[in-house]
Amino acid sequence: MPDYKAPLRDMRFLIDEVFDFHASYAALGASDATPDMVNAILEEGAKFCEQVLAPLNRSGDEEECQFNNGEVSTPKGFKEAFAQYAEGGWMSLAADPNYGGQGLPHSLGLLISEMVGASNTSWGMYPGLTQGAMSAIHAHGTEEQKQAYLTRMTAGRWTGTMCLTEAHCGTDLGIIKTRAVPQADGSYAVSGSKIFISAGEHDMSENIVHLVLAKLPDAPAGTKGISLFIVPKFLPDAQGEAGARNAVSCGSIEHKMGIKASATCVINFDNAKGFLIGEANKGLNCMFTMMNHARLGTGMQGLCLGETSFQGAIKYANERLQMRALTGPKAPDKAADPIIVHPDVRRMLLTMKAFNEGNRALAYFTAQLLDVAHSSDSDAQRQEAENLLAFLTPICKAFMTETGLEVTNHGMQVFGGHGFIREWGMEQLVRDCRIAPIYEGTNGIQALDLLGRKVLGSQGKLLRGFTKIVHRFCEAQAQHPQLSGYVAQLATLNKEWGELTQKVGMAAIKNPDEVGAAALDYLMYSGYIILGYFWLRMAVVAQGRLSAGGGEAAYYRAKLATCEFYFKRLLPRTAAHQAAVEAGSDCLMQLPAEQFAL
Amino acid sequence: MPDYKAPLRDMRFLIDEVFDFHASYAALGASDATPDMVNAILEEGAKFCEQVLAPLNRSGDEEECQFNNGEVSTPKGFKEAFAQYAEGGWMSLAADPNYGGQGLPHSLGLLISEMVGASNTSWGMYPGLTQGAMSAIHAHGTEEQKQAYLTRMTAGRWTGTMCLTEAHCGTDLGIIKTRAVPQADGSYAVSGSKIFISAGEHDMSENIVHLVLAKLPDAPAGTKGISLFIVPKFLPDAQGEAGARNAVSCGSIEHKMGIKASATCVINFDNAKGFLIGEANKGLNCMFTMMNHARLGTGMQGLCLGETSFQGAIKYANERLQMRALTGPKAPDKAADPIIVHPDVRRMLLTMKAFNEGNRALAYFTAQLLDVAHSSDSDAQRQEAENLLAFLTPICKAFMTETGLEVTNHGMQVFGGHGFIREWGMEQLVRDCRIAPIYEGTNGIQALDLLGRKVLGSQGKLLRGFTKIVHRFCEAQAQHPQLSGYVAQLATLNKEWGELTQKVGMAAIKNPDEVGAAALDYLMYSGYIILGYFWLRMAVVAQGRLSAGGGEAAYYRAKLATCEFYFKRLLPRTAAHQAAVEAGSDCLMQLPAEQFAL
Repeated sequence: MPDYKAPLRDMRFLIDEVFDFHASYAALGASDATPDMVNAILEEGAKFCEQVLAPLNRSGDEEECQFNNGEVSTPKGFKEAFAQYAEGGWMSLAADPNYGGQGLPHSLGLLISEMVGASNTSWGMYPGLTQGAMSAIHAHGTEEQKQAYLTRMTAGRWTGTMCLTEAHCGTDLGIIKTRAVPQADGSYAVSGSKIFISAGEHDMSENIVHLVLAKLPDAPAGTKGISLFIVPKFLPDAQGEAGARNAVSCGSIEHKMGIKASATCVINFDNAKGFLIGEANKGLNCMFTMMNHARLGTGMQGLCLGETSFQGAIKYANERLQMRALTGPKAPDKAADPIIVHPDVRRMLLTMKAFNEGNRALAYFTAQLLDVAHSSDSDAQRQEAENLLAFLTPICKAFMTETGLEVTNHGMQVFGGHGFIREWGMEQLVRDCRIAPIYEGTNGIQALDLLGRKVLGSQGKLLRGFTKIVHRFCEAQAQHPQLSGYVAQLATLNKEWGELTQKVGMAAIKNPDEVGAAALDYLMYSGYIILGYFWLRMAVVAQGRLSAGGGEAAYYRAKLATCEFYFKRLLPRTAAHQAAVEAGSDCLMQLPAEQFAL
Repeated sequence: MPDYKAPLRDMRFLIDEVFDFHASYAALGASDATPDMVNAILEEGAKFCEQVLAPLNRSGDEEECQFNNGEVSTPKGFKEAFAQYAEGGWMSLAADPNYGGQGLPHSLGLLISEMVGASNTSWGMYPGLTQGAMSAIHAHGTEEQKQAYLTRMTAGRWTGTMCLTEAHCGTDLGIIKTRAVPQADGSYAVSGSKIFISAGEHDMSENIVHLVLAKLPDAPAGTKGISLFIVPKFLPDAQGEAGARNAVSCGSIEHKMGIKASATCVINFDNAKGFLIGEANKGLNCMFTMMNHARLGTGMQGLCLGETSFQGAIKYANERLQMRALTGPKAPDKAADPIIVHPDVRRMLLTMKAFNEGNRALAYFTAQLLDVAHSSDSDAQRQEAENLLAFLTPICKAFMTETGLEVTNHGMQVFGGHGFIREWGMEQLVRDCRIAPIYEGTNGIQALDLLGRKVLGSQGKLLRGFTKIVHRFCEAQAQHPQLSGYVAQLATLNKEWGELTQKVGMAAIKNPDEVGAAALDYLMYSGYIILGYFWLRMAVVAQGRLSAGGGEAAYYRAKLATCEFYFKRLLPRTAAHQAAVEAGSDCLMQLPAEQFAL
């Protein structure tokens, strides 16, 4: 397993130099988040992730979670690491001070979660799911529920889950079968079986707070009849502590391709006592609070695993000696040259670097929007941030996981045969990453959400909210002495993006299948343009520093070289996606289902 | 694990209707390979693969090979299946009758190996490696060596290996350290340690014949000083049977991401008795006999695993109910529609289908060339076939494995969360496939071989040998009533292919790094055009059958629909690869190695 080192320099480049988090923290009144404090937090977080979590990553994969008679034991060291995490105040970092949190900006929480996911994705699932559940309780729970559950989750004593999927439905939550029957005491008796419940059962916390989608007896059919319930594993006793065992049990855990140290559970509710959260039949709305959090988090996994894979690959490429450079020996004193001299190895490494750093910029930009949406005093600012978040969330989830999977596969390929051997840890990153394009709504579903609900559903308004930003940037930088060529390339694509959208929109009026036919390629097309924008923003900053003649010239030159690589070798992929979008739905729909296989 | 059914209809479409194997068998004097005989062999092969090998695929993955004190046990049933395979005459099918073979065409052997690899890739490694070793002994061994080894391997009593890689070198065989010291009796004492030796040790055969690359004491440095040796695990006794144990031992086996039932061994030679095969210092040439065989076989793995994945995905997509079609319910009597109604699911299924069937056409075309190269009486025909094989082999290896990996990943994605669960078997196909772009020369090495050695090394001659075929086909079909649009699209690309090659060739004269910078994208670009050609050849046949009004209209219409999908949604990917090729090497080479990570 590659030794993970948190990329603090790169994180600071974005928060200090590109997006100026400090200015936005000040504007949002986050007075505790001073530059010194942010720095100290990042450095402490890095230490914890590098020294505590990273060493448990490979052993966790080998040990996997173990199921024994309803109980799940996590791999050695997981429980202790979680205690240390809670004690260090990492769970409470961005949580509400009214319930024990530190009230630091959400963006800072996301930066920490990047380091957690990069050092140990499986482990990160436990706090990650908990934070998703916390956000739903915070947004939709009663004051009493918040006091009862949120405080203990913020303290890292109780953890949370999202119980959505059932054996017969994942995407299609309208057809869930889990039922909740009102009881005389105001609680509900919840019965049903949920599958694929991450962190559904484990030995890391005193209690597990399940957030469960279920239907009331009189609920309307479909998604408009779903309600959300809090169903704790142990019912709060008189002191509010974990008391009597509820009728919730873990039936089994799944044996998976990856994230093997994350317990993926069948959770059975057998007239379990549950408490309605939010309004009856409005459960899907409540759940979206969790899901948006989870979708951004899942997108981050693509970045996290890509970063760790890059760190492994770059080290190996500098050490592994094999063949001579085509232009003549570069290490004549050695038996062969390090493989980083070979253009094709560099192609893989630069692809990894360009996606990782581009995805990081996209994620941090989104994180900054989270802060605004959460804390701005201005309704208009909040709404604008919400709109951009609605547009960017499916792209973060799908584009960052598709490219993350490509990156981890390149990292493995750089290792040649050794990449396939478990001992080196590179193949685990591919396996761990492979779930990310699937869960929290498959990437196909994200694409439908983007094109159907967000872009076309807003008559293009949500798209224009972003293309306007790109347009203004391109106008401002059109005469940039070194980068104007790329600015022009981006401006052209930005314009074509709108035109392509209109074309799909027109076609969709006549035939709704056009949306589904175009969606995934449209999302990828959009993602490449968005990353082009962020690469150019980074390049403008880097060029500015170089022109100003300050220090760290090598660092800024690397940014410019990677930007050039992105524009020349990755951004042209838009052409293939555009052609696929323009191909329309006929070539997908004409073949009768029974004639696919003959 | 999906139930594998050999795609006999599709195999017959290619051998009977598109490529007319029977005519070429007759022309080559393969009088035993009558249409009836070929049919019977395919049906028997299908039965064996479906009934014996496929059921051992998932259990093999779960059990893995076990190493115990130098011995390797294969998973339950593997040994018995191998005995049955040998007894059924499958190992001897295409082998030389002078050494116990049946002398049937090589192409027929490849068709059988497709079914073997699709039903159980790990198991297929054992006979696959043996066949590679057999071809090297057949081409380079003395008559005595052939009698001693080939006859027993043909009978399936002894198996073979290729011992190339060492810990410090895989691609760079010029720096191997294994030594062979001449002995008084004409044999050699071989010492060294080889890694990644597939089928290096196991319990399936009476003896294991290692073909080992090693250096003589006075050998020139680099690849011109490598010799090939036969080093059997047990030395032949007076009767030629497995006698005294040679000083060959298995040090350990690797724990891998996939093909877990294939034993990947460290093999130690400690003054083991070896016998020179072929000329001294010409070992690399001999090895290429094995490698070309192995490269085509590895390419086939992409097709094999893609086919099995498709069979699983299509079944699931027809059975799994989730959401309603965007155009309104298609199965109103059910809780939801089968997911095959959704355009994005169809996008994945058709991508799988288009790559599988296109790759199969490429593979069978290549197989037919193998027959000609092997058996034609005409020097000119043989030479032409050899040239086409030299050109197509790296493309088969790399393009078919890259696309095979994409296909297996789509298959997994179609299953949603269930795709990630081991029980369903879809993720195993991804893991088993992931080695194929790596071993037998990474795809980066294949790309260098294609662009550097084959295309530019022949001043474009080997490329023109293929583009001429495409050109003639396009000319002949230019006025095709239904397909002329695609013919024109292909003709344009075929022309651009030559122009792009010239551009790279010119750039490479000034800077050899241009070859490495362009290679992988050039190979993929070429592969897409080649598959376009084969798709159109299939479409012309299918359209002909439809126009003639015979039976099986649905089958032929599916071919046309898939061809349309390929031309509209996959072939445009050439644009992205072309742009990457044209980007040149500067954006890859400018960043100093030490500045990739800061």
